[in-house]
Amino acid sequence: MSEVDVPSVLVDLFLLFAAAKLVGELFDALGQPEVVGELLAGVVIGPHVLGLVGEGDAAVLEVIAELGVIILLFTVGLETSVRDLRKVGRPAITVGVLGVIFPFLAGMGLMTWLGYDQAQVLFMSAALVATSVGITARVLRDLGAVQAAESRVVLGAAVVDDILAIMVLALVAGMAQGQVSTLETGVLIVEIVAFLAVVVAFGPRAVRLLSALAHTPLVPRSPFVFAVLLTLGLAALSGKIGLASLIGAFLAGTIFEFSRDEVATQIEPVYELLVPFFFAITGSRLDPTVFADPGILGLASVVTVIAVVTKIAGGYLGSVGLAPLGRVTVGVGMVPRGEVGLIVASLGLGIGVISRDLFGVVVAMTVVTTLVTPPVLGPLVRRGRERRPETARGRENPPAPGKETGPGSAD
Amino acid sequence: MSEVDVPSVLVDLFLLFAAAKLVGELFDALGQPEVVGELLAGVVIGPHVLGLVGEGDAAVLEVIAELGVIILLFTVGLETSVRDLRKVGRPAITVGVLGVIFPFLAGMGLMTWLGYDQAQVLFMSAALVATSVGITARVLRDLGAVQAAESRVVLGAAVVDDILAIMVLALVAGMAQGQVSTLETGVLIVEIVAFLAVVVAFGPRAVRLLSALAHTPLVPRSPFVFAVLLTLGLAALSGKIGLASLIGAFLAGTIFEFSRDEVATQIEPVYELLVPFFFAITGSRLDPTVFADPGILGLASVVTVIAVVTKIAGGYLGSVGLAPLGRVTVGVGMVPRGEVGLIVASLGLGIGVISRDLFGVVVAMTVVTTLVTPPVLGPLVRRGRERRPETARGRENPPAPGKETGPGSAD
Repeated sequence: MSEVDVPSVLVDLFLLFAAAKLVGELFDALGQPEVVGELLAGVVIGPHVLGLVGEGDAAVLEVIAELGVIILLFTVGLETSVRDLRKVGRPAITVGVLGVIFPFLAGMGLMTWLGYDQAQVLFMSAALVATSVGITARVLRDLGAVQAAESRVVLGAAVVDDILAIMVLALVAGMAQGQVSTLETGVLIVEIVAFLAVVVAFGPRAVRLLSALAHTPLVPRSPFVFAVLLTLGLAALSGKIGLASLIGAFLAGTIFEFSRDEVATQIEPVYELLVPFFFAITGSRLDPTVFADPGILGLASVVTVIAVVTKIAGGYLGSVGLAPLGRVTVGVGMVPRGEVGLIVASLGLGIGVISRDLFGVVVAMTVVTTLVTPPVLGPLVRRGRERRPETARGRENPPAPGKETGPGSAD
Repeated sequence: MSEVDVPSVLVDLFLLFAAAKLVGELFDALGQPEVVGELLAGVVIGPHVLGLVGEGDAAVLEVIAELGVIILLFTVGLETSVRDLRKVGRPAITVGVLGVIFPFLAGMGLMTWLGYDQAQVLFMSAALVATSVGITARVLRDLGAVQAAESRVVLGAAVVDDILAIMVLALVAGMAQGQVSTLETGVLIVEIVAFLAVVVAFGPRAVRLLSALAHTPLVPRSPFVFAVLLTLGLAALSGKIGLASLIGAFLAGTIFEFSRDEVATQIEPVYELLVPFFFAITGSRLDPTVFADPGILGLASVVTVIAVVTKIAGGYLGSVGLAPLGRVTVGVGMVPRGEVGLIVASLGLGIGVISRDLFGVVVAMTVVTTLVTPPVLGPLVRRGRERRPETARGRENPPAPGKETGPGSAD
């Protein structure tokens, strides 16, 4: 019955949590985002550096990390509302679309020029596409800036971007393997669009209807339990139809209208418990020795520069209507690839399309884009807020209970 | 990198949580303990009945269940204090010791009489020994009765009992396999005793010292984060030295003295999220078809009766000083074997000492003792409280925020 050494997993979880919190609070004391400290803590104690956290429990840690990112995205969704998302709809869609087209075309150009075969070219280009909203969302939350206009463009664009990225990935994986027909790809795309349309159009109404039925045995008594069910349910459903599960969790947060403030308070300890695991475990996947080969280091550098420049260009050009500083902020917010890049890379490695070297390049690009974003995004968001102090806070929700309002914070 | 189908795990988690909450609240509406509903929900949707939750994710579900029982025992520990535990020390030790000796000797007598070989006799007897404090703790918490004198005897006795049970299991496994020497067993026993003595003697002082260092970068700012670190740390440590990890979590709760009330409030949503998984996943492990063979059904019945009678006798005879009703309550509180019986059974099956049939007998005994306890224990605790209304509540802690004080409760 037991396939897993439970005490060893508990030791791993303890070490990940302790290292993430220690380095995270140290970074905070130095004025840097905690999330970077949590990621670096993961790199250092991970299997490739100190080896304190074993690779044997990878499956379990993957699920714990997934629960962390689901709680993160639900919390961010809870601080957004469908109305707000609709309002920033047009720039968010433009940013999302450009943020897919630019990196994909640049990746294809580079990899074709370097002489890689078609499957490798397609896979590497797809790995450049997907923004990880997790990192950016965390930085925005730590700064209490989820409600700012550019934040809402980034969050909306990341959702659009993720949907397009999954479509690109499905297409590329199908072409690389020759297994997925055009018909199947079409079905997947229709499913995804239908899922989003149904959730956004009918979700808020369904939640209101169900909350009117509370205090009957059909609906959980506690709004918090209801929120957990909605989040797990939509995360599982979006995962099952081929979308990233964190998209479902984000949507669950945006449509949840039943005792929002109470649930926002109750989700905080769950957030504090689970979210650091996502960042520490993501960090632990980097093997810094891949950089020892100068060829790999060079390729990784070029790919990383392309990944950064194309996303900033897409964000800047797409966010027409914001001030220039806001447009740069949107572009920078789209840069981190986080777990999405890692998922693409491990999928490509798993089906044998990309080599260990190219896998290393994607991982390095993912980790570097993830690490460089917070130190740049933080000052940009703060400067944007200084310029228009009145509009930086939302109307309906209290400021995010992030670092700034936490007990004993130095800010 | 990915060994696990994350969307499938999320579907399993959603189904387990939804079924546990639905059947749990239905049971509650019928005046039965929610925990029985959560267990039965797990049995029904588990791989052996409806098969809605697959067996493929067993390793991940085992860890999620473990996190649930760790949070449960930490919360119970938080509602107990070392001073209280010391006060009920003598009856708890007597109950714990008798609750090990009686079932072990009765098991040996029965299995020897039925002609099983020595290794099987020893393993089955060991499986009869360990009380699962999880089930009883949950029922006591749901009734807000953790502070009652008999509750404290049961919780203290279950800790003693678990330590003795692990020693018995270590001895039996060693004798059955011929691998563990007397010296190694002695070392294990010394380790366990030293761990407990150190934690109980120095733990509260260490926690007070560390909380005095809060607001330095050495110690987490948030008492909640500190509590999580202490709980994961002691759970991992006690797991690593061969003790059940939930013992470490329980001790972490008892020695935690740093903003207890704040942490008790913050742990509640984590409890609501994780603890139902423990009961639903434990339930999902029962295969009801083992009862189809009349021989197995008969043996399971006799073993179950012995398991119940010997624990009630041990609890009654050991809890000298309580009223007769309280002594019966203590005995009944010691009956459930829960996850500990399942751990012993799967270990025995894993090393090839017991057959699939005997494994089924142990699982059946475990599940039946677990299912029958709450409906009997609840009325006993309530009747005990009616007889002495003043002493049923603790002095220092508020009433447990369980069912009785929950929103919309029928009680």
